[in-house]
Amino acid sequence: MVKATGERTIMDLSIEELKALKDDERKNVTTHGTIYNVRDMGDFAFIILRKINGLVQCVYTKNNSEEEKKMLQEENCIRVTGEVRDEQRAVNGIEILVEKIEVLSSPSEELPFSISKRKLNISLENEIEIRPVTLRNEYKRSVFKLQAAIVRGFREYLENNGFTEIFTPKIVAAGAEGGANIFKLDYFGKKAFLAQSPQFYKQTLVPVYERVYEIAPVFRAEKHDTARHLNEYVSVDFEMGYINSFYDVINMETGMLKYCFDFLEKNYALLLKKLGIELPKFDSIPCVKFREAKEMVAAKYNRKIKDPYDLEPEEERLIGELFKEDHGSDFVFVTHYPVKKRPFYAMDDPEDNKYTLSFDLLFKGMEITTGGQRIHDYDAQVKKMIFKGLYPEDFESYLMLHKYGCPPHGGLGMGLERLVMKLIDEKNIRATSMFPRDTTRLNP
Amino acid sequence: MVKATGERTIMDLSIEELKALKDDERKNVTTHGTIYNVRDMGDFAFIILRKINGLVQCVYTKNNSEEEKKMLQEENCIRVTGEVRDEQRAVNGIEILVEKIEVLSSPSEELPFSISKRKLNISLENEIEIRPVTLRNEYKRSVFKLQAAIVRGFREYLENNGFTEIFTPKIVAAGAEGGANIFKLDYFGKKAFLAQSPQFYKQTLVPVYERVYEIAPVFRAEKHDTARHLNEYVSVDFEMGYINSFYDVINMETGMLKYCFDFLEKNYALLLKKLGIELPKFDSIPCVKFREAKEMVAAKYNRKIKDPYDLEPEEERLIGELFKEDHGSDFVFVTHYPVKKRPFYAMDDPEDNKYTLSFDLLFKGMEITTGGQRIHDYDAQVKKMIFKGLYPEDFESYLMLHKYGCPPHGGLGMGLERLVMKLIDEKNIRATSMFPRDTTRLNP
Repeated sequence: MVKATGERTIMDLSIEELKALKDDERKNVTTHGTIYNVRDMGDFAFIILRKINGLVQCVYTKNNSEEEKKMLQEENCIRVTGEVRDEQRAVNGIEILVEKIEVLSSPSEELPFSISKRKLNISLENEIEIRPVTLRNEYKRSVFKLQAAIVRGFREYLENNGFTEIFTPKIVAAGAEGGANIFKLDYFGKKAFLAQSPQFYKQTLVPVYERVYEIAPVFRAEKHDTARHLNEYVSVDFEMGYINSFYDVINMETGMLKYCFDFLEKNYALLLKKLGIELPKFDSIPCVKFREAKEMVAAKYNRKIKDPYDLEPEEERLIGELFKEDHGSDFVFVTHYPVKKRPFYAMDDPEDNKYTLSFDLLFKGMEITTGGQRIHDYDAQVKKMIFKGLYPEDFESYLMLHKYGCPPHGGLGMGLERLVMKLIDEKNIRATSMFPRDTTRLNP
Repeated sequence: MVKATGERTIMDLSIEELKALKDDERKNVTTHGTIYNVRDMGDFAFIILRKINGLVQCVYTKNNSEEEKKMLQEENCIRVTGEVRDEQRAVNGIEILVEKIEVLSSPSEELPFSISKRKLNISLENEIEIRPVTLRNEYKRSVFKLQAAIVRGFREYLENNGFTEIFTPKIVAAGAEGGANIFKLDYFGKKAFLAQSPQFYKQTLVPVYERVYEIAPVFRAEKHDTARHLNEYVSVDFEMGYINSFYDVINMETGMLKYCFDFLEKNYALLLKKLGIELPKFDSIPCVKFREAKEMVAAKYNRKIKDPYDLEPEEERLIGELFKEDHGSDFVFVTHYPVKKRPFYAMDDPEDNKYTLSFDLLFKGMEITTGGQRIHDYDAQVKKMIFKGLYPEDFESYLMLHKYGCPPHGGLGMGLERLVMKLIDEKNIRATSMFPRDTTRLNP
């Protein structure tokens, strides 16, 4: 009887293993990869192999046969046997002198264009259409490797700080964020929705685990097509109990970002180099009140305040610019948003009930996080619902949280694609969503 | 200007910190938690405090005032100041001699029943109705802590083995698993679906990252209500390239389970004790062909084989029983499922094309994983689609994978709730989904 033991069964060597070989182990070595690019040098060719986490240069002596031409087709998946030697000019400091190539699989068609250039010279629209191909580009795949690496950093920080990961339903009976921006579906004859956020559930779980987080898709049926909105995106959500004020939440996020950037420098230095980016360095993040931020921008840029209770995207951008120029900070927390801009679960500021104990985090002039302290008292929550024109009886299971008690708490939601977008200085959020969903796009 | 530094701001001590205090630090200590239970002992009371990851006993000297009664209400969130002392009979080996209690928040209603017993004495139906409350029970919250811990173990193993985490869209243009079991929604006037699995996307990403994983919700509109089906569940998916056969996938899963159980023993010993479970111990997992498994069960239990190309739940259970009895194994891989039971992307067995190079993993007689090798050749995939009655033109973006080349690859999907269900010996899968979705349930 066959038995699976869990021991490694695929023996082809990785880039790290190739580099770590001792002198007497460097012959007759086997590795695999995809032919990313072939540079014909006449008698020989450089085959650039795309491997799991980088490129490896192979040197192949040509015989100019027809089989050879087929063998060296781009996107062929091959197994290579040969000798490893040092080559400082090669990307990993090594190259493989090829003795044998085994073709494991071949495409049925040639690529529509070469994907091995650093940046692809096509429009974003067209690039997205064929993401199954363009993601194979070394730069493009690095973008989403960065996404994965950031999530690792966040998770490590949150786990270190006692947060429990939760998995909450995405098919729900009511929207958490209100408004018309919600996808509807038929659920066995009942009306259901796609969760706009895990808000109700993460709050519900504060009395259970005190600190919880979820990194998962959320759905917004927003009808406007902009460079910074997606209809489905990855939301980094956390919620924490026993806070003294919403500054505890702000502080936790600051710690998370610092930890994550350190984590990236430490573990993904090569990736950051491939992307050609430098991470923001900071000891602290300034916090400014919504009202004051508007006044600062009005004064510095000689603008009129049109609506004291709203923030235009242009104002957001200018707040970012101001804090970069005057305080050297890429990040700024804007606090105390007006009641009318915040959902019904936001706690009012006891010092001025036109404002709430809430905040946004702006990164290079764009909102990447919304958070704040939530109402924990039952009567206060019911009152605020009614004030907002909602019916408390529609929120029976959510209100169990308040009815049966919960600690003072707060949390936030961060848009993962926006963070990555700003880190790599992209102008359109579709560049940092693998398979973006917008009002016209359901494919790929 | 306020600045957030990321340094800790909530100074109340955790259980670990309370236990680690030196003798001269044990006075005037502050911690917080929720009143889980009060045991009145006449002149004094034991207050059991529910904290982030366990219970702490506090000893409180009574004065029998009206305020005191209010202060000691269950589910009050309090901050306690007092002296820590050793108490071997208390759950953590310490207790707190209370000097001061500050009530941070109070429920507006008493609990419908006490939740501090080990197991709640109500029906599963009723228990689910009020999950926001019942999850606060120490046993119930441990169940979902185990879920989170398992995911941590899986992630650690997958990252160690070079897998990249991916985030794929849940609103899709076509179902990956076929059939009518799919939720439909209106997407800005277009017909869209909720993803039954990340199958197409994870395969698409094999040429990009070679090894990918995703742990995320999947949606199945199955109309039948059983003890082992949910309409939304958490799927642990991975996919890997350059496999020699589907046994490489089987082996990776075996390694993942072994690693995860070791991880739990090492890092969550107390949790396992709270749940009163022992993890399965094994060096290897036996593999048996579908056809042989059916014959073994027929012989041993004197059953007739009704349909040689299908497996009844009862047969599944008996295969589990047989391998437990005859081979001492809780797990068994059943391999080479019939073509008619597998989707169009499954690779046929070249030795017998009525079967596929696929497998299920049974755990204690229940399927918890489905996986196998996928078709990587374009012509073969198109041919199989047509054989299955599908139109290749409906799968244009998926087929880019095959058209532009991909390595031999395979992968699997595991139902997280089922794994936990079998680990804690629950009979109904709703016990291991925090907020289960079934044909009649959208709430809480």
